[in-house]
Amino acid sequence: MKPSIPKGTRDFSPTEVANRTYIINTIKTTFETFGFQPIETPSFENASTLMGKYGEEGDRLIFKILNSGDYLNKVDDKLLAEKDSLKLTSQISEKALRYDLTVPFARYVVQHQNEITFPFKRYQVQPVWRADRPQKGRFREFFQCDADVVGSQSLWQEVEFIQLYDTVFTQLGLEGTTIKINNRKILSGIAEVIGAQDKLIDFTVALDKLDKMGQEKVEQEMLDKEITKEAIEKVQPLFSFTGSNINKLASLESMLQTSEEGTKGVEELRFVINSIAELGLKSANLEVDVTLARGLNYYTGAIFEVAAPKGVKMGSIGGGGRYDDLTGIFGLKDVSGVGISFGLDRIYLVLEELGLFKTVDLPKPKVLFVNFGENEALFCMKAIAALRKNDVKSELYPDSAKMKKQMNYANKREIEFVVLVGSQEIEKQEFTLKNMVSGEQSKLSLRELVNQLKA
Amino acid sequence: MKPSIPKGTRDFSPTEVANRTYIINTIKTTFETFGFQPIETPSFENASTLMGKYGEEGDRLIFKILNSGDYLNKVDDKLLAEKDSLKLTSQISEKALRYDLTVPFARYVVQHQNEITFPFKRYQVQPVWRADRPQKGRFREFFQCDADVVGSQSLWQEVEFIQLYDTVFTQLGLEGTTIKINNRKILSGIAEVIGAQDKLIDFTVALDKLDKMGQEKVEQEMLDKEITKEAIEKVQPLFSFTGSNINKLASLESMLQTSEEGTKGVEELRFVINSIAELGLKSANLEVDVTLARGLNYYTGAIFEVAAPKGVKMGSIGGGGRYDDLTGIFGLKDVSGVGISFGLDRIYLVLEELGLFKTVDLPKPKVLFVNFGENEALFCMKAIAALRKNDVKSELYPDSAKMKKQMNYANKREIEFVVLVGSQEIEKQEFTLKNMVSGEQSKLSLRELVNQLKA
Repeated sequence: MKPSIPKGTRDFSPTEVANRTYIINTIKTTFETFGFQPIETPSFENASTLMGKYGEEGDRLIFKILNSGDYLNKVDDKLLAEKDSLKLTSQISEKALRYDLTVPFARYVVQHQNEITFPFKRYQVQPVWRADRPQKGRFREFFQCDADVVGSQSLWQEVEFIQLYDTVFTQLGLEGTTIKINNRKILSGIAEVIGAQDKLIDFTVALDKLDKMGQEKVEQEMLDKEITKEAIEKVQPLFSFTGSNINKLASLESMLQTSEEGTKGVEELRFVINSIAELGLKSANLEVDVTLARGLNYYTGAIFEVAAPKGVKMGSIGGGGRYDDLTGIFGLKDVSGVGISFGLDRIYLVLEELGLFKTVDLPKPKVLFVNFGENEALFCMKAIAALRKNDVKSELYPDSAKMKKQMNYANKREIEFVVLVGSQEIEKQEFTLKNMVSGEQSKLSLRELVNQLKA
Repeated sequence: MKPSIPKGTRDFSPTEVANRTYIINTIKTTFETFGFQPIETPSFENASTLMGKYGEEGDRLIFKILNSGDYLNKVDDKLLAEKDSLKLTSQISEKALRYDLTVPFARYVVQHQNEITFPFKRYQVQPVWRADRPQKGRFREFFQCDADVVGSQSLWQEVEFIQLYDTVFTQLGLEGTTIKINNRKILSGIAEVIGAQDKLIDFTVALDKLDKMGQEKVEQEMLDKEITKEAIEKVQPLFSFTGSNINKLASLESMLQTSEEGTKGVEELRFVINSIAELGLKSANLEVDVTLARGLNYYTGAIFEVAAPKGVKMGSIGGGGRYDDLTGIFGLKDVSGVGISFGLDRIYLVLEELGLFKTVDLPKPKVLFVNFGENEALFCMKAIAALRKNDVKSELYPDSAKMKKQMNYANKREIEFVVLVGSQEIEKQEFTLKNMVSGEQSKLSLRELVNQLKA
């Protein structure tokens, strides 16, 4: 039986690794240009660091690592007899695989607070693991690419993150993305105005479905959730919320004038919108979207989400926001943070669909030296050393196999050039270079060979 | 209480990530120049893929992942009552963390054999996990950097791997490494000649201690292991095995002339030694070492190990060898493989000790713009956008905090340049650039600023 890998995990072929590396390096380079610094944290954390941070469902989806050795030794017999998996877990598992990069980052900041210079702008690109049901575009092991700033409440960070998204997607050739922005304070303000503060989650969850379900069904869902007809009346502008960002801000300002928090949210949003209007974007569109409510219990200020260019069917390819008390869970109070994340797997699918990987250098040699025997191979190896010194990816076919087999190898790997060296070439100290695409052949000295392939 | 991480794991600070990335990128680039292609495999494999591949001790050191959900549901009650941890493991854990990169690679080759063009030169740089007792330089999570070729028995691969080690260490500035080479067939030949074939492991384990313990104690250990006095007599040349590689080969050839396998081993070694003598090395030394026996049951041909330059106390910083039946464990017979590995953590320690990280670009901005308020910041943000477009790492201090606080931040992060923009500068459309090292200040236009910092 052929071996296999666990469901929800993936092997990456050389081409896939090259394409993924291209995306990751574009993101990393931009992070650094914007002044972010990389950190890395362990793949597994103490279970106590992760458990209880992602809600009950999150706890369930965290991969737990079995303790080593005789892990049952100290377990309560009664617990075993009852076969209570949930209760037993904490007794036989002390470590768990990272579920996201945010909680480990919060842990890092608290643990290393005396070594860090605040405001601390960090980025982190590492895999995370979730025992989710695998489906298209959702995996049990996947990479997150996060950048966060902690220790500053300045809204310039929000401005910078929008520029950062714009820069990365423009560099990837992905023009026409939409960066949606909202503010948690606006959502709270809306709830306040409609007098249904305890129903904020129900309200935003319903409002979030406006695009998919239409106004009538959303209103029905709100009514079902016991949001009053009068309340829904008060937010009618939200059901036809179009026009420029400036118009939207004006409409929100008037709707939320009685709410202090809502008014603060509009002010924050206005600062970001105006600054971006002054600074300009390369290829992205910035759009106020009051239905945006991702991770509502988490964010306290700005909320971001990025949609792929119109015409590409794909969920969000990035998201983030501000959280006023990131590190409180680990005992360091009042440290404000704001951050964004890039959805690597979805960005990959979008670039693939749009044919935007064509510029990526595939991990294959530029030239293959055909192997005609020991002497010829040694002669070739000297040339190969010279080429490699000039950063030309080169290889010798390892065996003096039949010519056809060696050429087949070159063709299958789509190697651009082949070098042929027989006894004649050795005598004349020259190399026959064949262009595998045009079929063109030429005889060259070592210096000519290096110069031609280096170009 | 401050949060912590599991023992044997590490957080990496920005500087550490930068230094590690420098090493990894040097290795990866060289792998690609030599024609190797990257692959990646999942962090966890089916437990059945890993278990039984590393011996009993290895099985014990593999981190197992607890099944999700009600994992006790189907477990035999009797097993639970007996509290037999070992037997229970396979019933509550189907997945395990990668223990090395070689077994997952063998699994990959068998699983994807129809998509792969052989000979397949792959490299892989990923973390692995071992539940080992942590100690200096030994961690529970660490990176392996492997390159292997499968599907060719050509000894040119061995030659290339020596060149590859030489190239990487030379590029890292680590000159004077010693690449030790041996051949498993020579070890078998020695055992054959001394008539103690069943004692090969005992013999090589004892011989391996020659440097540390001296001849007398090694001979005593051999006698204790019931290797006869006569046998030890026959291999006396091995106890004073010095001189050039050519001399050593001659001595081995005569000692092993009655052993077919041993003679084959000497021939293989000679091919490699002679080829390298013809091709030359940049900074490494190649040294035949018959005490080299790492992972004896694994390798079938060449065995490699790299020692740091003399004067640096450190175990091996790399190793590898040839294994004639890599993929047999997964049902694909007779696929020969040869590979090497770089010990990232030890290389890091050596480079640090020798001060060889000084050329690494630290992940910090080249210039910090001091924030004097909203208008000034907006003016600065326009310049920052221009600088970033020219790949100059730049940032704005996010808050208009006291000058002293902002300058402290620049000093602590060792940022080279600071830009000061007040209302005067805005009026004149210029920037005051301060060199934080020399203290020098100059007033520049945007174009001059970009040109100066780009340089």
